[in-house]
Amino acid sequence: MELQAVAKAEIGRVKQIGIGIVGAGYMGKAHAVAMSAVGAVFDTPLRPWLEMICATSESGAAEKARAFGFRRSTKDWRRLVEAPEVGAVIIASPQDTHREIALAALALGKPVLCEKPLGQDLVESREMTDAAERTGCINMVGFNYIRTPASQLARQIISSGEIGAVTYFRGEHAEDFLANPATPASWRTRGRATGNLGDLAPHPINAAIALLGPIAELIAEVETVHKTRLGPDGPEAVTNDDHAQFILRFENGVMGSLYSSRIATGRKMGYAYEVFGTKGAIRFDQEDQNTLWLYKGEDNPARCGFTKLLTGPSHPDYNAFCLGPGHGTGYQDQLIIEARDFLKAIETRQPVWPTFRDGLLVNQAIAAAWLSSELRRWVKIGEV
Amino acid sequence: MELQAVAKAEIGRVKQIGIGIVGAGYMGKAHAVAMSAVGAVFDTPLRPWLEMICATSESGAAEKARAFGFRRSTKDWRRLVEAPEVGAVIIASPQDTHREIALAALALGKPVLCEKPLGQDLVESREMTDAAERTGCINMVGFNYIRTPASQLARQIISSGEIGAVTYFRGEHAEDFLANPATPASWRTRGRATGNLGDLAPHPINAAIALLGPIAELIAEVETVHKTRLGPDGPEAVTNDDHAQFILRFENGVMGSLYSSRIATGRKMGYAYEVFGTKGAIRFDQEDQNTLWLYKGEDNPARCGFTKLLTGPSHPDYNAFCLGPGHGTGYQDQLIIEARDFLKAIETRQPVWPTFRDGLLVNQAIAAAWLSSELRRWVKIGEV
Amino acid sequence: MELQAVAKAEIGRVKQIGIGIVGAGYMGKAHAVAMSAVGAVFDTPLRPWLEMICATSESGAAEKARAFGFRRSTKDWRRLVEAPEVGAVIIASPQDTHREIALAALALGKPVLCEKPLGQDLVESREMTDAAERTGCINMVGFNYIRTPASQLARQIISSGEIGAVTYFRGEHAEDFLANPATPASWRTRGRATGNLGDLAPHPINAAIALLGPIAELIAEVETVHKTRLGPDGPEAVTNDDHAQFILRFENGVMGSLYSSRIATGRKMGYAYEVFGTKGAIRFDQEDQNTLWLYKGEDNPARCGFTKLLTGPSHPDYNAFCLGPGHGTGYQDQLIIEARDFLKAIETRQPVWPTFRDGLLVNQAIAAAWLSSELRRWVKIGEV
Amino acid sequence: MELQAVAKAEIGRVKQIGIGIVGAGYMGKAHAVAMSAVGAVFDTPLRPWLEMICATSESGAAEKARAFGFRRSTKDWRRLVEAPEVGAVIIASPQDTHREIALAALALGKPVLCEKPLGQDLVESREMTDAAERTGCINMVGFNYIRTPASQLARQIISSGEIGAVTYFRGEHAEDFLANPATPASWRTRGRATGNLGDLAPHPINAAIALLGPIAELIAEVETVHKTRLGPDGPEAVTNDDHAQFILRFENGVMGSLYSSRIATGRKMGYAYEVFGTKGAIRFDQEDQNTLWLYKGEDNPARCGFTKLLTGPSHPDYNAFCLGPGHGTGYQDQLIIEARDFLKAIETRQPVWPTFRDGLLVNQAIAAAWLSSELRRWVKIGEV
Repeated sequence: MELQAVAKAEIGRVKQIGIGIVGAGYMGKAHAVAMSAVGAVFDTPLRPWLEMICATSESGAAEKARAFGFRRSTKDWRRLVEAPEVGAVIIASPQDTHREIALAALALGKPVLCEKPLGQDLVESREMTDAAERTGCINMVGFNYIRTPASQLARQIISSGEIGAVTYFRGEHAEDFLANPATPASWRTRGRATGNLGDLAPHPINAAIALLGPIAELIAEVETVHKTRLGPDGPEAVTNDDHAQFILRFENGVMGSLYSSRIATGRKMGYAYEVFGTKGAIRFDQEDQNTLWLYKGEDNPARCGFTKLLTGPSHPDYNAFCLGPGHGTGYQDQLIIEARDFLKAIETRQPVWPTFRDGLLVNQAIAAAWLSSELRRWVKIGEV
Repeated sequence: MELQAVAKAEIGRVKQIGIGIVGAGYMGKAHAVAMSAVGAVFDTPLRPWLEMICATSESGAAEKARAFGFRRSTKDWRRLVEAPEVGAVIIASPQDTHREIALAALALGKPVLCEKPLGQDLVESREMTDAAERTGCINMVGFNYIRTPASQLARQIISSGEIGAVTYFRGEHAEDFLANPATPASWRTRGRATGNLGDLAPHPINAAIALLGPIAELIAEVETVHKTRLGPDGPEAVTNDDHAQFILRFENGVMGSLYSSRIATGRKMGYAYEVFGTKGAIRFDQEDQNTLWLYKGEDNPARCGFTKLLTGPSHPDYNAFCLGPGHGTGYQDQLIIEARDFLKAIETRQPVWPTFRDGLLVNQAIAAAWLSSELRRWVKIGEV
Repeated sequence: MELQAVAKAEIGRVKQIGIGIVGAGYMGKAHAVAMSAVGAVFDTPLRPWLEMICATSESGAAEKARAFGFRRSTKDWRRLVEAPEVGAVIIASPQDTHREIALAALALGKPVLCEKPLGQDLVESREMTDAAERTGCINMVGFNYIRTPASQLARQIISSGEIGAVTYFRGEHAEDFLANPATPASWRTRGRATGNLGDLAPHPINAAIALLGPIAELIAEVETVHKTRLGPDGPEAVTNDDHAQFILRFENGVMGSLYSSRIATGRKMGYAYEVFGTKGAIRFDQEDQNTLWLYKGEDNPARCGFTKLLTGPSHPDYNAFCLGPGHGTGYQDQLIIEARDFLKAIETRQPVWPTFRDGLLVNQAIAAAWLSSELRRWVKIGEV
Repeated sequence: MELQAVAKAEIGRVKQIGIGIVGAGYMGKAHAVAMSAVGAVFDTPLRPWLEMICATSESGAAEKARAFGFRRSTKDWRRLVEAPEVGAVIIASPQDTHREIALAALALGKPVLCEKPLGQDLVESREMTDAAERTGCINMVGFNYIRTPASQLARQIISSGEIGAVTYFRGEHAEDFLANPATPASWRTRGRATGNLGDLAPHPINAAIALLGPIAELIAEVETVHKTRLGPDGPEAVTNDDHAQFILRFENGVMGSLYSSRIATGRKMGYAYEVFGTKGAIRFDQEDQNTLWLYKGEDNPARCGFTKLLTGPSHPDYNAFCLGPGHGTGYQDQLIIEARDFLKAIETRQPVWPTFRDGLLVNQAIAAAWLSSELRRWVKIGEV
């Protein structure tokens, strides 16, 4: 069988781009699978191929390249970024590597999709945002949860005024992977950016901004409940937070609340929000990602209630996955939608939300939360 | 038919007490029905009869007496309180009348069940509490929601340590009766104690204290979203709050969050809470009052999940209503449980939770919330 | 305190009726509580008092009279039926006693509320129905589940055509009190009328008829899964059924399905139904008795879904219990609604659904199911 | 960029197989996407490439080849089946083409994955099964719903005895795409195999067999509710069924029930089942495909209830899609699992459930249902 012929045939038909992914763990694989499937799912004008993957060892990278279907592999992210065949870079490596990789790729004029949160702190995030805007490259942050059909629908419903003027927002991201105090110390409990605020809070903060617009000020209580955990050499101090509670005030004047936690026993993917408006309300929980609950006040109170909208072909981006309603999309599918948007931005040279600047807004909120919790007072976003 | 004989027979068999209820509206009726049914439901050693009801006019009171089955009626609460046949007084009249009625009844040595919140403000609540404790009369505040079988079960589960050490509490009381800005002004939008903080917040504050113990400090954001409403003479200012968001710190060190609202579109009886612990979690929503969700971390993650505990005869106070599980209790039944507890306290001369002092704790939290929102800073409960 | 005065005052104000209840168990108590509360809840023109209760021993009856608040007690149901002060009789004793008691009460011209199912078999049920119709007394069968606000709403929605022409009905009544094969033999496993078909199936059959009209024919599979259970003298044969599955054809041509079981592990009060129509659908489960799910096909498929209608004051008979939506009614409340309907029928001398004749229809369906299962063929209701 | 190098590198690393898909509609695309992603998701030893797609016109096929990423296209399924580069054939074309394509592919020794139901009738299905077994080729029927992590978990729970001896099964597949009688006639309302029994019933029948084993006998009521629909030339008769109700008896003696419908208003993907056992129960609904409800009877009734098991990495085949629990899989993912199983069967030369013979069992049940409904009597599976 002549695969050469395949290759030539492909070249003749569609625009293509080689993808390089830095990081071969959980998110590296997710992006690799998404890039394998996105063309067929969405019939994208620009078609990706998996060019190179970077992992922490040469052998590990080679193994992952074979497993995921990449042409090449490396343990040196610079080699990946600089490879001419790599037309776009996805950064799925630890947070402390985001800045350097992004700057290098942008300097070479390459589009970058960077996993959230952008940098480890505001200084890094600002430097990355500046570089992205200065170079004019396509730049995107990987907030994939907001791309499910249900969350896209939520955005439509709110922005169209269907639930009236918004009066309250509540968001949360609750998981329980460190709920048990006997769970030992790990990279997750060391450093600061790897804690709850760095890892989980960005998702609902991004959702808050997507649904209601920028945050003006907040007061937060950030806490490390389990202050030591067993490390290889005995108990060690946990250096980041377990959970955090915010009261928010949005620039549009609306009050909100946000909770994020890695010790929320029983919650597995508790990315959830509810939004009240003068004419209606919505409720969403990612653990039931194919449902959006919509309430609309109507003339007859005897027929008012929350309606369970099961996602289907009449909702955003659903029908590329399935023509039947209620058949359901999953986690991997939201990555495929994200991949489609990234490819479209590259092809059309139009910015794609959320850009690095959007990611910076999220990091500002996190920095404000840290500051607020330390000073125990309200902090304006502009203060950080 | 000789009803006299009935009466005599009754007297011979059981201890009896005449009940006087001040207020013939929503809550007055609820207490009247509860007192009609409680004896048969719980086989109470002390049996109540409906002696006198007080309403705002003589004819209205007489009409309600006939409807609810009271012997007598009055428009003068003093006459009710002073009537020798009235052995115990239930105060279900507007908040601005609570103090005076309670003080009069206590001064006569009569047990008092007062609807929440205790007084209009801390000064009143403290005076009422002092009087109750000085006179030694049975005194109780009407937080009936915490008395459902499911909420009693929640208290058992937490206090027994079944979910381990508690790490977070979230409570809310969300209704939507003023969500529509076109709803006109009324007694609800005038005065201060009749707003969301005065009317709705007491329930989840009481739940928070019942489940986790006293609150140490809080920061709150209290807001009147719809600042004017149409009154009989044109637009008038709303003088109390629509909703409020709190971050709490309990005396036991646990962080919590609380939201109460009368503009939470779509929510009808959103008295809800979730509590995370190191070994498990519970979730409850009064709109589904016969269910308590319990999560317990176990050895096998493949079998962990929230279990829907449908209330039944193995749960507190359920089997007096029905011997079959899942048959359900309703709003009126929680009043009957409350009535049983009040009667039992009278009969056994033992205090019954929540006493006026417990109600005072709730009012302190409300006062602290007002102060915190005005000063925009954390407030310790002891400050108010 | 002069209770005589109470009595006289009462006599002057309202019409009264003395209630006699035969049976002091689960249902006897439920009816006693309902009769204690119904006047205050619904402001009924006719007010009941608890005159006499009949139990299996004199001392037991006296004890229950004291507990429930009856004037008198007896172990002889004839004495109760014949007492001039007993104006209406409620039969809450075992099924094999229904016929004789009902016939005696009817012969004396007294209204009768008989617990379901009417008689032990069709012969008895027909005799009872004939007597009721011949004497012209008010007669009613105690199918209380259909009286919840949610089920009354379901009936309204279907009968008004709101979901279009009905195309399918599925009903069930699933409980699990005999799911464990180690549960010993008892009165429930002896005799025939005390099995699943006699005890549980009547409820969803009655619901089916209430919602869709008379059943024309059916095919049923009736089964005793656990054929022996441990009795006092060793294993004994179970003489009635554990569960039964029906396919129905209604007189209006619609197809339906019905399942009832006492071995449906995990189901506690699984009285449930769903009805599909050309324009909409409803779903209900008594384990969540305050919710009716309503689907209405609309122009915009992006907004169609099942709406969770939480019962409230805009639904049938709810606001007598509470003025706030979502506060919930419970098992005891459906008995109170039933008591109101029985009293109203007595007062107005108008028949009340379901009459004995309606109960006979249910018994016919049960007899048809037995026959069908034995012959393993479709059976027309008219055949039995 | 040298794609030739890619090709060679790939050849050196993994075993590959060219996939041919007949049918470029809904299911053709789903299989194409699945084959694009399966290698990266599961690290399959055998890696598929998309060799050829067959559609009804040359231009349509070419367009779909470009869109889905196939090397070649054709409107002639024979050309696809006979192409040496096509190593395995997926049949996703209309039911009346299954037989001929399958026989041709099997005759050439090629593995075949055929969409359900196998043939249009029993004669076709038997011929296909015979050919598959005679040629010894890998053969599989596309019942993908049973491959979700939740349904695989259900099979594990039942087969391991975790819920004890099974006592009842209820299955359904309810959709509403023809609930509106005004929906016009189409290919779905013409012919017989394209009706509800041919299109929807196979899924829950297959589930029934997967969970409980072979069906012994059944009685069915099959109905065309909307007997005419508007066609291009006016009203035309609908020639197949809208819905069907079965009572089943499994070979293991257990009773069951099954309903399938295309007029179940409000139901979108109502592939659902519940299974009761002596020690527990499970409930599943594909509209909430990431949840399996599990009830286990335990010593303490106060802690028994249905537990919501949210699928996660500890459940079958989940962690290839995501390492975090509760993140969810979707419709497309169940196709990927199916693709993995098909490839594994080809690679290991081991049969994969459900084979054509398993598909034949489903078709036998359908034939028995038609016969039963016509004769209105119980039919043994062996009769057809």
